[in-house]
Amino acid sequence: MPELRKDPVLGRWIIISKERSKRPTDFPVEKPRSGGGFCPLCPGNESFTPPEVWSAKSDENGAEGDGSGWMVRVVPNKFPALIIEGDLAKEGVGLYDKMNGIGAHEVIVESPDHEESFSDLPARKMQFVLRAYRERILDLEKDLRFQYVLVFKNHGKAAGASLEHSHSQLIALPILPRMIVSELDGAKSYYSYKERCLFCDIIRQEMQQDVRVVCQNERFIVITPFAPRTPFEMWVLPKHHQSSYCLQSDEELYDLACIFGEALQRLTACIPNVPYNFVLHTEPLRSGGTEYFHWHFEIVPKLTSIAGFEWGSGFYINPLPPEEAATFLRKSLEK
Amino acid sequence: MPELRKDPVLGRWIIISKERSKRPTDFPVEKPRSGGGFCPLCPGNESFTPPEVWSAKSDENGAEGDGSGWMVRVVPNKFPALIIEGDLAKEGVGLYDKMNGIGAHEVIVESPDHEESFSDLPARKMQFVLRAYRERILDLEKDLRFQYVLVFKNHGKAAGASLEHSHSQLIALPILPRMIVSELDGAKSYYSYKERCLFCDIIRQEMQQDVRVVCQNERFIVITPFAPRTPFEMWVLPKHHQSSYCLQSDEELYDLACIFGEALQRLTACIPNVPYNFVLHTEPLRSGGTEYFHWHFEIVPKLTSIAGFEWGSGFYINPLPPEEAATFLRKSLEK
Repeated sequence: MPELRKDPVLGRWIIISKERSKRPTDFPVEKPRSGGGFCPLCPGNESFTPPEVWSAKSDENGAEGDGSGWMVRVVPNKFPALIIEGDLAKEGVGLYDKMNGIGAHEVIVESPDHEESFSDLPARKMQFVLRAYRERILDLEKDLRFQYVLVFKNHGKAAGASLEHSHSQLIALPILPRMIVSELDGAKSYYSYKERCLFCDIIRQEMQQDVRVVCQNERFIVITPFAPRTPFEMWVLPKHHQSSYCLQSDEELYDLACIFGEALQRLTACIPNVPYNFVLHTEPLRSGGTEYFHWHFEIVPKLTSIAGFEWGSGFYINPLPPEEAATFLRKSLEK
Repeated sequence: MPELRKDPVLGRWIIISKERSKRPTDFPVEKPRSGGGFCPLCPGNESFTPPEVWSAKSDENGAEGDGSGWMVRVVPNKFPALIIEGDLAKEGVGLYDKMNGIGAHEVIVESPDHEESFSDLPARKMQFVLRAYRERILDLEKDLRFQYVLVFKNHGKAAGASLEHSHSQLIALPILPRMIVSELDGAKSYYSYKERCLFCDIIRQEMQQDVRVVCQNERFIVITPFAPRTPFEMWVLPKHHQSSYCLQSDEELYDLACIFGEALQRLTACIPNVPYNFVLHTEPLRSGGTEYFHWHFEIVPKLTSIAGFEWGSGFYINPLPPEEAATFLRKSLEK
């Protein structure tokens, strides 16, 4: 019997079609082809990107500015979806509404090594990437035109990556994205009913039931959510209530790097070369610490196709129950 | 300067990134490969599908039941996402909600001819497909377990089609899909403010401005919407207010077939072999004719990829302004 499940945050329903249940090896993954040739994100080619807006230098090497010696480097996107200069010029056109496409679009180069993927980064290196996210959000927060900064990653061609060199992106937006509005609404309505954070309650229940927990450390937990959109979808959450990603100390970011890396290694062990996206959902800029929202990463492997039904309904069909996905992920690093 | 535009129905914002603006030939389309071999949807192979639930027979040929002689044939999906037998058994699991995956999942075989695509169907044949949608919704409406029937089509492998033989599908659902709820909410809130149907107002404005109209006849209009998710997205709407698709007469369905076919031929002339999805949005079952909702088809070509940003935000980036798409589509059938 297939099952309908409701995402407790968004109210989005999904179909778990157990009859079509699959093993990790049933998901075909295209082998990545090495592009070869010139890479604008590699050390030595810094002049091919716009000037950097943030970087982390290695300790041994004191190189400055756009020179080499960086471990992580943030630069404006050369082909931005939104542009930084100008004002919003909000305008109505008959019954329609529009505004200028003002925003920031930046690229976080995660490693100087062209071959090193995000999931392979040792925690002390991944920590710098996670720090870059925090520092860039804090900086863009000062620009009062922006309401939200969305940090995301496309890994693998099928997941939308156009450059091979490992990188993530952020887009600062002048309006709250619909998905964030829905999450905030869902979380707020639960809070006003229960006086408790919905995500804290989810974590508590997941730790008790222990059927969808993938891995955890003292500060963080990784689960397959109750109503996942895709096989092997995972959420990474801080165990203790924290509304904004930016409230984290460097020490906490190190612990986050450990568990985030482990989650992705488990995923990759299940499905080699898996294309995936991840996004950071944190509270809107300048919210000042809400009681009801709880930041988290959502990792969404690209293994199923979005077709007419999903487009038309906002409903997803997922052939793999999250309990089975969690079992595969828990066992995946056993020798 | 890129532009942010708000969909007036859903409140969903999209980015029109004009700087990345493209011509139809800039969208790479994979050539379809003919699968060859056995086709369960071809005449003569009727016994390889579950027994038909509806069919239209050709006039000349009086064959009955599952024999050949059909023009359009509706059968239960052999691998359904939801199943028809059982009750919903709604249940809470701690803070989560679930129910049995009860529903209907049917396949509408659009032609006996394996090679004939939906957009190639002459109006008198396409009318039978459109009639099948109406008849199946009317029949499934009698089942009080269902709240909605979503009709959709996946054309081309990239758009999720798994069989080559031209077909569409429907899924009857025990709950209202989130996308429909959002459309109803948006339309209802506009109506309560203005006392007018939002879609009727859109049609009036589009006909006046005449920059996003693709084609029209006496009863129907095809537009590229103001805030399209993808290049060449089109909406097909009845010009006069009508909340339910099922209220249409056979004569109206013939006119719809003419304009629907023309819209798809224009699309295919712009981008040969274009993969696309379409969905029918009509009022929920047993609504009895709302003043505020207006049924329509949404045609969504699969030309851009859904990556981390779209997943995380519900925001779409579209490189082609709908005014330019409309111009290409209007000129596409000129010799």
